[in-house]
Amino acid sequence: MVHYVELPDGRCYPVVIDSLETLPVWLERVAVPRGRCFLVTDEHVAHLHLESLQAILKTAGWTPYVLVLPPGEPTKALPYLERIYDEALRWGIDRRTPLLAFGGGVIGDLAGFAAATLLRGLPLVQLPTTLIAQVDSAIGGKTGINHALGKNLIGAFYQPALVLADPSLLQTLPEREWTSGLAEVVKHALIGDPALFSLLEMRWTDVLQRNPSLLPDLIARAVLVKIRIVVQDEREAGPRAILNFGHTFGHAIERVAGYGHFTHGEAVALGMLAALWLSHQRHPDLPLTRIRALLQRLPVPPLPETLDFKTLRQVMQVDKKTLAGQLRFVLLRRLGEAYLADDVPEEALQAAWQFACASRQTAVAY
Amino acid sequence: MVHYVELPDGRCYPVVIDSLETLPVWLERVAVPRGRCFLVTDEHVAHLHLESLQAILKTAGWTPYVLVLPPGEPTKALPYLERIYDEALRWGIDRRTPLLAFGGGVIGDLAGFAAATLLRGLPLVQLPTTLIAQVDSAIGGKTGINHALGKNLIGAFYQPALVLADPSLLQTLPEREWTSGLAEVVKHALIGDPALFSLLEMRWTDVLQRNPSLLPDLIARAVLVKIRIVVQDEREAGPRAILNFGHTFGHAIERVAGYGHFTHGEAVALGMLAALWLSHQRHPDLPLTRIRALLQRLPVPPLPETLDFKTLRQVMQVDKKTLAGQLRFVLLRRLGEAYLADDVPEEALQAAWQFACASRQTAVAY
Ligand SMILES: NC(=O)c1ccc[n+]([C@@H]2O[C@H](COP(=O)([O-])OP(=O)(O)OC[C@H]3O[C@@H](n4cnc5c(N)ncnc54)[C@H](O)[C@@H]3O)[C@@H](O)[C@H]2O)c1
Ligand SMILES: NC(=O)c1ccc[n+]([C@@H]2O[C@H](COP(=O)([O-])OP(=O)(O)OC[C@H]3O[C@@H](n4cnc5c(N)ncnc54)[C@H](O)[C@@H]3O)[C@@H](O)[C@H]2O)c1
Repeated sequence: MVHYVELPDGRCYPVVIDSLETLPVWLERVAVPRGRCFLVTDEHVAHLHLESLQAILKTAGWTPYVLVLPPGEPTKALPYLERIYDEALRWGIDRRTPLLAFGGGVIGDLAGFAAATLLRGLPLVQLPTTLIAQVDSAIGGKTGINHALGKNLIGAFYQPALVLADPSLLQTLPEREWTSGLAEVVKHALIGDPALFSLLEMRWTDVLQRNPSLLPDLIARAVLVKIRIVVQDEREAGPRAILNFGHTFGHAIERVAGYGHFTHGEAVALGMLAALWLSHQRHPDLPLTRIRALLQRLPVPPLPETLDFKTLRQVMQVDKKTLAGQLRFVLLRRLGEAYLADDVPEEALQAAWQFACASRQTAVAY
Repeated sequence: MVHYVELPDGRCYPVVIDSLETLPVWLERVAVPRGRCFLVTDEHVAHLHLESLQAILKTAGWTPYVLVLPPGEPTKALPYLERIYDEALRWGIDRRTPLLAFGGGVIGDLAGFAAATLLRGLPLVQLPTTLIAQVDSAIGGKTGINHALGKNLIGAFYQPALVLADPSLLQTLPEREWTSGLAEVVKHALIGDPALFSLLEMRWTDVLQRNPSLLPDLIARAVLVKIRIVVQDEREAGPRAILNFGHTFGHAIERVAGYGHFTHGEAVALGMLAALWLSHQRHPDLPLTRIRALLQRLPVPPLPETLDFKTLRQVMQVDKKTLAGQLRFVLLRRLGEAYLADDVPEEALQAAWQFACASRQTAVAY
């Protein structure tokens, strides 16, 4: 399956959902000249999947240089960027040497930023290996690293030449990474694809169990939502912000609970419940119960005591999503359609949070 | 005087040649919202011109944060980039906070790259203070830093929102920085503007003495050559390479003589003599004597003994301007028109170098 990201200025690249075996053919199709390539991955992915990727590349006549970095968010930082710079330049890349990012969002963002800035831009190939990366982070050209003062504060918009997502790689994902990614898939359904929402509702057990016959379609639908938004707004001037559905609360929840307690997806799952309530206030036709039921099926650990509304509210205020002091929310007008709202009344916030907490109490056990 | 860089995809920004006093008005015209701005400069420039720039900004209601870095090429490197990241983020920028690069090519390239990558892109304002920066480096969006393994190996294409070049700032430039910049102006004349060439010929004494009545016109003409080339080829896929006239030899000369012996402009002045000879071989109508006469008036220190042809030739081979082992030269078809040639015969190179050396021996004393 292949979808194309066609940007208004004529740039275009394929997002392929298929086996890694097809990589050499796709590299040829996007006119990346065969030869040397620089491959960045992390230890988990290397352990599980590097051998087969290398075999595929070598059989097709490629000479990969492999850089394996530690797994986890702390790798998305300047010292590792420098490490990529040093090794790539020492090995001797030129402007046509492709850089392959083989991993989750951490490797994709970091190696993507390296590709954006080495020799002022190398061809970037995203080979996402997590659900989040396959449906979200590998597509759309946001690359970057974290800074001690916050996440993603340094980076560039830089579109890949090719994205190849192999669904079979997801079978080795730890359980919690899988369900965390599912939260993003549900988000994409809510903001952009009612049919995907129905698919998730109807086949939830298969979804949780990663039924291989279901995955390509699931991923493809979620990918299409992301593509549709990105082509409207490459540089995040407007529409792209609807990808932040659930994030105003979500970011604050992540922070207050302490990074590590919730995964990003779990925090967003909670944030989406709050945002759902706010949306329903304005749009009573929104199928609140139906949407809530799916959100409740996303596994989320119990809420810690510290997560009281007052603290959350304070943290939301200093979050970068505020504009001129006004909290910004993404709301649903109907299932599959979202928009930005800067005028959510203060009083509604606490009720929204209570709705989220209450919904979790009656949710399936974690 | 103002010229516009109009890129094919619709992006457009002004290159203004005028007093710094006009900065606030121009910031308003390019829709940079008044308020805080982050200013990067170097110690030399700060010492001479920072006070007046700050007064201009403050009077107009701006609050600048000023970061003064050490002068010189070693500043164009990762530790100083990190310094900008840290101070800008700690001070608290947002995506609309403009970054002002007030200095020569070093500050412009470094701060430009910081602007390209902070929060995935801040509005960048180039306030070039050297001749090289005013006619060349501040225009066209090439930003970046050096790496231990070579110059400009890390960077991004990132267009400024505004370039404001105040010719009066150039009066304080050290003599050698001025003449080094003049080599680039002569280069722009040769590759793109016969009328500029005539102006240089006729008013050389005024040019050397930086006659204030002459400077705006001189700069504007040289700027226009750069703009014409950049709009054809933002990302240096083809035509932009003609800006490398004199650089195949020039880079090698800089390297072999040892960085610091010649300035970049001086090395390019020598390289242009060699490229002139190669051009004349193919295009006998090219006014060799006339062009040589102007090139001989560029002050260049005596050539060191080490600068023999054999060493030069070796260094040229490993230079990044080679493609598939073939040396690439920019040649002049006629005065004001240049093109790329990959097929310069090996035998011609030594003769070209001899021509350059001989021309310097009969040149005006340094
Ligand atoms: N660029 C964007 O548009 C965008 C969008 C969303 C998120 N992100 C970023 O993505 C990052 C999160 O992405 P992530 O969740 O993929 O994180 P991640 O890259 O850290 O991957 C999560 C974990 O799964 C492991 N892993 C990866 N693939 C595996 C596989 N196939 N089998 C077993 N284990 C595997 C990794 O080693 C890691 O331990 C964050 O830094 C976030 O900021 C970026
Ligand atoms: N981005 C591009 O397209 C491009 C093009 C050409 C050159 N460059 C880069 O530009 C750099 C060279 O530029 P440069 O020659 O301006 O170097 P520079 O910035 O180091 O300036 C030269 C010297 O002049 C001093 N100076 C600057 N303005 C002054 C003033 N008004 N009065 C007195 N002193 C002043 C500086 O402090 C420095 O000591 C190199 O790093 C080169 O790679 C970039």
